[in-house]
Amino acid sequence: MTHETVSILPTVDAHIYPRGALDVLSRDEVARLRDASSGGMHELLRRCALAVLTSGSASDDPRAARELYPDFDIQVLQQDRGVRIELVKAPATAFVDGEIIRGVAELLFAVVRDLAYTAIELREGGPRNLVSSEGITDAVFGLLRNARILHPIDPNLVVCWGGHSINRDEYLYTKQVGYELGLRGLDICTGCGPGAMKGPMKGATIAHAKQRHRRMRYIGITEPGIIAAESPNPIVNHLVIMPDIEKRLEAFVRMGHGIIVFPGGVGTAEEILYLLGILLQEENANLPFPLILTGPAASAPYFEQIDKFLRLTLGEVATSRYEIIVADPAKVAKKMASGIRKVRENRIVEKDSFFFNWSLEIPLAFQQPFVPTHEAMAALDLHHGRKPAELAADLRRAFSGIVAGNVKEDGMRRIEEFGPFKIHGDTDMMQSLDALLRAFVEQRRMKISGAYRPCYEVVA
Amino acid sequence: MTHETVSILPTVDAHIYPRGALDVLSRDEVARLRDASSGGMHELLRRCALAVLTSGSASDDPRAARELYPDFDIQVLQQDRGVRIELVKAPATAFVDGEIIRGVAELLFAVVRDLAYTAIELREGGPRNLVSSEGITDAVFGLLRNARILHPIDPNLVVCWGGHSINRDEYLYTKQVGYELGLRGLDICTGCGPGAMKGPMKGATIAHAKQRHRRMRYIGITEPGIIAAESPNPIVNHLVIMPDIEKRLEAFVRMGHGIIVFPGGVGTAEEILYLLGILLQEENANLPFPLILTGPAASAPYFEQIDKFLRLTLGEVATSRYEIIVADPAKVAKKMASGIRKVRENRIVEKDSFFFNWSLEIPLAFQQPFVPTHEAMAALDLHHGRKPAELAADLRRAFSGIVAGNVKEDGMRRIEEFGPFKIHGDTDMMQSLDALLRAFVEQRRMKISGAYRPCYEVVA
Amino acid sequence: MTHETVSILPTVDAHIYPRGALDVLSRDEVARLRDASSGGMHELLRRCALAVLTSGSASDDPRAARELYPDFDIQVLQQDRGVRIELVKAPATAFVDGEIIRGVAELLFAVVRDLAYTAIELREGGPRNLVSSEGITDAVFGLLRNARILHPIDPNLVVCWGGHSINRDEYLYTKQVGYELGLRGLDICTGCGPGAMKGPMKGATIAHAKQRHRRMRYIGITEPGIIAAESPNPIVNHLVIMPDIEKRLEAFVRMGHGIIVFPGGVGTAEEILYLLGILLQEENANLPFPLILTGPAASAPYFEQIDKFLRLTLGEVATSRYEIIVADPAKVAKKMASGIRKVRENRIVEKDSFFFNWSLEIPLAFQQPFVPTHEAMAALDLHHGRKPAELAADLRRAFSGIVAGNVKEDGMRRIEEFGPFKIHGDTDMMQSLDALLRAFVEQRRMKISGAYRPCYEVVA
Amino acid sequence: MTHETVSILPTVDAHIYPRGALDVLSRDEVARLRDASSGGMHELLRRCALAVLTSGSASDDPRAARELYPDFDIQVLQQDRGVRIELVKAPATAFVDGEIIRGVAELLFAVVRDLAYTAIELREGGPRNLVSSEGITDAVFGLLRNARILHPIDPNLVVCWGGHSINRDEYLYTKQVGYELGLRGLDICTGCGPGAMKGPMKGATIAHAKQRHRRMRYIGITEPGIIAAESPNPIVNHLVIMPDIEKRLEAFVRMGHGIIVFPGGVGTAEEILYLLGILLQEENANLPFPLILTGPAASAPYFEQIDKFLRLTLGEVATSRYEIIVADPAKVAKKMASGIRKVRENRIVEKDSFFFNWSLEIPLAFQQPFVPTHEAMAALDLHHGRKPAELAADLRRAFSGIVAGNVKEDGMRRIEEFGPFKIHGDTDMMQSLDALLRAFVEQRRMKISGAYRPCYEVVA
Repeated sequence: MTHETVSILPTVDAHIYPRGALDVLSRDEVARLRDASSGGMHELLRRCALAVLTSGSASDDPRAARELYPDFDIQVLQQDRGVRIELVKAPATAFVDGEIIRGVAELLFAVVRDLAYTAIELREGGPRNLVSSEGITDAVFGLLRNARILHPIDPNLVVCWGGHSINRDEYLYTKQVGYELGLRGLDICTGCGPGAMKGPMKGATIAHAKQRHRRMRYIGITEPGIIAAESPNPIVNHLVIMPDIEKRLEAFVRMGHGIIVFPGGVGTAEEILYLLGILLQEENANLPFPLILTGPAASAPYFEQIDKFLRLTLGEVATSRYEIIVADPAKVAKKMASGIRKVRENRIVEKDSFFFNWSLEIPLAFQQPFVPTHEAMAALDLHHGRKPAELAADLRRAFSGIVAGNVKEDGMRRIEEFGPFKIHGDTDMMQSLDALLRAFVEQRRMKISGAYRPCYEVVA
Repeated sequence: MTHETVSILPTVDAHIYPRGALDVLSRDEVARLRDASSGGMHELLRRCALAVLTSGSASDDPRAARELYPDFDIQVLQQDRGVRIELVKAPATAFVDGEIIRGVAELLFAVVRDLAYTAIELREGGPRNLVSSEGITDAVFGLLRNARILHPIDPNLVVCWGGHSINRDEYLYTKQVGYELGLRGLDICTGCGPGAMKGPMKGATIAHAKQRHRRMRYIGITEPGIIAAESPNPIVNHLVIMPDIEKRLEAFVRMGHGIIVFPGGVGTAEEILYLLGILLQEENANLPFPLILTGPAASAPYFEQIDKFLRLTLGEVATSRYEIIVADPAKVAKKMASGIRKVRENRIVEKDSFFFNWSLEIPLAFQQPFVPTHEAMAALDLHHGRKPAELAADLRRAFSGIVAGNVKEDGMRRIEEFGPFKIHGDTDMMQSLDALLRAFVEQRRMKISGAYRPCYEVVA
Repeated sequence: MTHETVSILPTVDAHIYPRGALDVLSRDEVARLRDASSGGMHELLRRCALAVLTSGSASDDPRAARELYPDFDIQVLQQDRGVRIELVKAPATAFVDGEIIRGVAELLFAVVRDLAYTAIELREGGPRNLVSSEGITDAVFGLLRNARILHPIDPNLVVCWGGHSINRDEYLYTKQVGYELGLRGLDICTGCGPGAMKGPMKGATIAHAKQRHRRMRYIGITEPGIIAAESPNPIVNHLVIMPDIEKRLEAFVRMGHGIIVFPGGVGTAEEILYLLGILLQEENANLPFPLILTGPAASAPYFEQIDKFLRLTLGEVATSRYEIIVADPAKVAKKMASGIRKVRENRIVEKDSFFFNWSLEIPLAFQQPFVPTHEAMAALDLHHGRKPAELAADLRRAFSGIVAGNVKEDGMRRIEEFGPFKIHGDTDMMQSLDALLRAFVEQRRMKISGAYRPCYEVVA
Repeated sequence: MTHETVSILPTVDAHIYPRGALDVLSRDEVARLRDASSGGMHELLRRCALAVLTSGSASDDPRAARELYPDFDIQVLQQDRGVRIELVKAPATAFVDGEIIRGVAELLFAVVRDLAYTAIELREGGPRNLVSSEGITDAVFGLLRNARILHPIDPNLVVCWGGHSINRDEYLYTKQVGYELGLRGLDICTGCGPGAMKGPMKGATIAHAKQRHRRMRYIGITEPGIIAAESPNPIVNHLVIMPDIEKRLEAFVRMGHGIIVFPGGVGTAEEILYLLGILLQEENANLPFPLILTGPAASAPYFEQIDKFLRLTLGEVATSRYEIIVADPAKVAKKMASGIRKVRENRIVEKDSFFFNWSLEIPLAFQQPFVPTHEAMAALDLHHGRKPAELAADLRRAFSGIVAGNVKEDGMRRIEEFGPFKIHGDTDMMQSLDALLRAFVEQRRMKISGAYRPCYEVVA
């Protein structure tokens, strides 16, 4: 797209004065915020801000946004009463008659707030210990509290996972589930993009309106790598930007009082393994955590395949931690509501807080990013007979590596250079994994250019 | 539909305790309410209540509802703290896990409240004078105040008119206009059914959420004959049931600070003539009243034809009171917003209230129902040279009569019995009217079974 | 006081725009309000408005106010958005830097609102039946609802009666009782003047603040004859002006969930007889109604004498309806709180409303004013053996007449002209009455100039 | 008072669950809070908690409280949803029918919150730099923000200083000034004890109620040494406990938008010198800071003497920073309101925040405690010709030392051991100081046992 074309897209220059978490800052904090936003954080801030400013626009392609608004810039300045945000050549669609849309402004403040917190509080050599499991959990807590979304209210937060490119039937189904959840006063938390991340919020909006539910929360938890690719949908009224994928996942499982998984691609499957890997920890054995896999009638085979794979690899024990419900939104919502009532009782008995699941044991292995090198992949141990929780952890890593080898730039380069990963595992497990991935390809849940060629070899 | 089929549709019996206008009643009022609801008003109450209880359900056909829930009943009983509403065999879809959806309950209270007000305050021989123009206006005011929708806030209420059976393009357009209105903080008032009555509210909902607009009003004004046929859409959060069509129209023009007309059928055309007939009164000459006719590109010919007809019949003067905008939702909203600002200034200068347009002169002829007998139709005087306002009044009557003769039971019977209406009018006017109606038929805006046969003859 | 002195008292001219019940009026209502306020109601409005504008000022003498602000005037005008109140030469103490104190403005709107309601709705020949017992009760209800002080909330309203000129010890005691009531979340309703009408509110204010009780109500119920003599104290945040003494008393007993009587003069004693007369009706026998007579240690003899008189005249049965507590504010509040809990239960069982005691039977005799002529006094029947309720009614009338004969202009004139009243009654009853009145004189609770000379004679 | 007597004073054991700043804590924070409260902080916590629990009780003597409730104890425990506070043998006066008074509970949470913040965030070797001027200011800001009393609202906070043992006339005057401030929508901040710290709040309460001012703030700023001696008065709705006198003074001058000084003792005089010392800094020359010294007519001589002393020592320039108003509460409030409007304008121009006066330059010397040893006192330089700001700093120190030598345990011991302080200063200054102190003694503003004997000698 040439600059000439761009020049006709209307833009706006504007000053904005933040509210919320940014309106009572110390002189020192304002200075550090200004420094961080003009220094190393600037490009990241610019990218995230643009994603937010194009929220709800027709195209969800973030690169398009960057190409359409090449001269967009954002500055954080010190001002009376705190900070001032200066926008240059910002998308006019975020404004109405010259004034920024209030909800967009709030998302923009959230971007600045969270990037600043990460840059200042979670910086290397900063006051926080980010090496230990406790330290990482504390950082996740700190970020969420700073975002002002932790409240000592009755548990009612349902996390919804699923693909961002699902078919229309599946999308309508996520809306129906969201509607039934909303009718029961439940709030929604998702990854904040399109597809299964938008549908439940949209459905809940209608139900919340009908139930006159006032303080409804549509929480979007994202991270810098994703927000640029998946603009927050316009329903999100609380946005949090976690510093990386692992902290984002931890935020989901510590804040959510239950999780619903809709059909999705490889990412969704990996998420299921992440959560089951944690729930199958012995320490978490008695912790109630409603987990429901659901979709419309046509997606029944999808969940059957997932279910078969989980039974084969993790054993029957794994099935005790989830329930598959097909084509019954009301049942999903009823089960979730009753599951959350049990969570509530358990928190009271265990003296845990309502707003953060401290009792959930998350091993450090799930908190640290897994880098899928050939060595790391070769070190995986995918054999029957291991503890389900440990096997789940390695399966998740295998999965993550295969995904990377297939579609991620880094991973694909490694495969080209060093050949397929060698994975040590039992044959049946490997075949099942393979079958699962091929099914994703067939169902168009994975974007593969050309024929699908596995990037791994099984070593018996 | 047989009783057997019906019996499988789930129903619920429930007691409900009203809030709002019904929670502080005198012992006498409760008794009168109970009497009215068990006496002559009962069947009407039952029908309206059922319409509200099936709000937002798949089918919009009210008879279907009555056939699907044949044993539904409603009783108003005296109870501690006021009244209790008892529902028998009510549609289960209005309930979640045994509890009525709060918004549905509110609409139900509105039904009881307004029918009671009409039965008690506006009864024949009651304390109000319903014969004079002032008396009728006062009754309209009383009903709206009793419904608690008159507030001394800044003018921001846009009335949207248009057909209930419009095509998908037109429906999406009404949503876009509603969205742009909502972005500018404007509230929506419609006839509360589907189509052009639902789209603007739906669009505004998204915009209000994005603007964090809190006290948004989605006002539906209906009347007993319509509510049974057109269930209030589920977005309506303030429902008012006026006793008849004329009072409903007066409620629209006295409460609304501006009116937008989307494509519609004969009813919509008649509404335009009603409003222009009033606005062309000399007494209203200096009263600002933004009136915009708008639709997507494909509906341009529709508005051209309307425009041509209005110019021919009422003269160029009529065009000064409306503006046609095609395929530009943002422009519609901007014009409406600036028009409403002028209304605000005028109210201040004229010392009129913000919430009720007292200054608008509505002649008694527009307040009394027109019954299209052959005598009444023959008495119309559709000639050039009359005052535009008076001609508009007669044109509206002619229109109303022709519509009745074409599609309403009473009217059709009269035509069969006495032959076509004889209308005295200038030839060009009559031809233009004829052309307009034929176009409606072609565009499927009129439901005609068989070939279209005019029900009138022109007497030169 | 000469005009010269007056001229130095600062005054303010101001326009005020009402809120609350006066902000959504019909054109007709505004016109009627304007007419009423400029016609017969004007002098009354002027007097009441001045009382409110001098609320909380040093002197409580209303005539002083009228003499100090002889040129004060008030007009109600029609304006954009409803009515405008124009004040001329109003006391500057009601203003701060040119702006009226908001609470004073609210009391002023209450005056206009209630006088207008009385003039329009309760006018002779108006829509209401003010002859029957039900009609009078309905008028009381209508006035209170129009004042927006009837809410379907949990019963918590304590009415406090007692003298306006009590000694310092007694005043401090009323504050302590108010404090203990406030600590228990109870709201206060009084006659809104000084003394025992102010103390409980003042004490409750501190307690409500400590308990962070937000929607506290300090309701003052007055009537035109009293408000001019007893300015509402500045704590009152809801003021209602009932049209006469009888409707004021009915408002107290229908709204209050319990009543506390502090030491007072003859008026207070008459109020006790009014309430006991009603509570001793057979129809009210099972109606819970907490009634506590209380004061500091020094006022024990006062209540002993009252108690003795009640036992002698009404019999032991009367004592079942009240409790005397001396010098124990916490006990008073506890008993009242538990008594109100019983009222709550009874209302639920009896299906009566929480905000208006419909079940209480008030005979017409207590609703109609008693005019103490010699004939009326001679017709009283004060003998043992009558039903306590009926005897109480006649005793109250006797009391009222004796008071009038002693201190009221009309009554004193009648005594001068026709000699003492002849009262037919048993000797012991008459002596007891006499003793009671002499005690009031000694305790300076009655303002008598010269020696006390009974205005009645007993006819055995 | 013997133990036997004590045992009859009613006490209550209770569990309390905090709200506000303590309801969303991390697991780590809860543990540190529990540790701190059971370790070194425990005795301090116990003392402060007791002070708060006896708030508003008859006696203001904190030792009395400790003697009356010798077995009182407080524990902070970890619980579901955060922390639980356990009270043992707590004064029953803080409870109503077994439940703690809500306002008292809030003050109790404030005690825990601030002591925890100080123990955790401001501990030696902690994350904060408490050595530099900037670091100390940042600590003050951190504490106030953590107490949630910094809000970006329009400047309206008036700090009131003055003695805790003032005479009745003076007390009534402070109430009148508070009333006039409250009428103008101004909020009050004081040291939170009795006397001049209670009167303005009490007066403002009445005015705020009359003006329907909702979010009124009665902020008490104290420190551990004082709270134990001066229970917060019951009106305080925001309590902050600063770690020492210097940070408390800095909190006053950074949060307050203006300061009113009522008559007081030596402490008050020292505060005036503290503030003038800061305001006379060249850097603060152009900073608006309304400072009004006021009292009833009888206290005119008091202020004259202060004024004379300030003129003599600091020169005429000092008088430009304060105004003395005698016996005119309305004028005080008007001047303060207009002064605060100038502060508002200045903050906007200077881009300073509304809620914290960052621009005010406070030299480190004023932030560090002054310890009055003989060396330190001998090093003071009280001669004409120095810069007023520097001289004010030394005068304040001299004052502080003399006060200590007269009445504080440490200081008196030093004087006994080493003889009188030697102060180097000009004779006239010394004589004036001496006269001032003697006047305080005569006016009973200083508690001196026996004859007054100066604890210093002047060295010319």
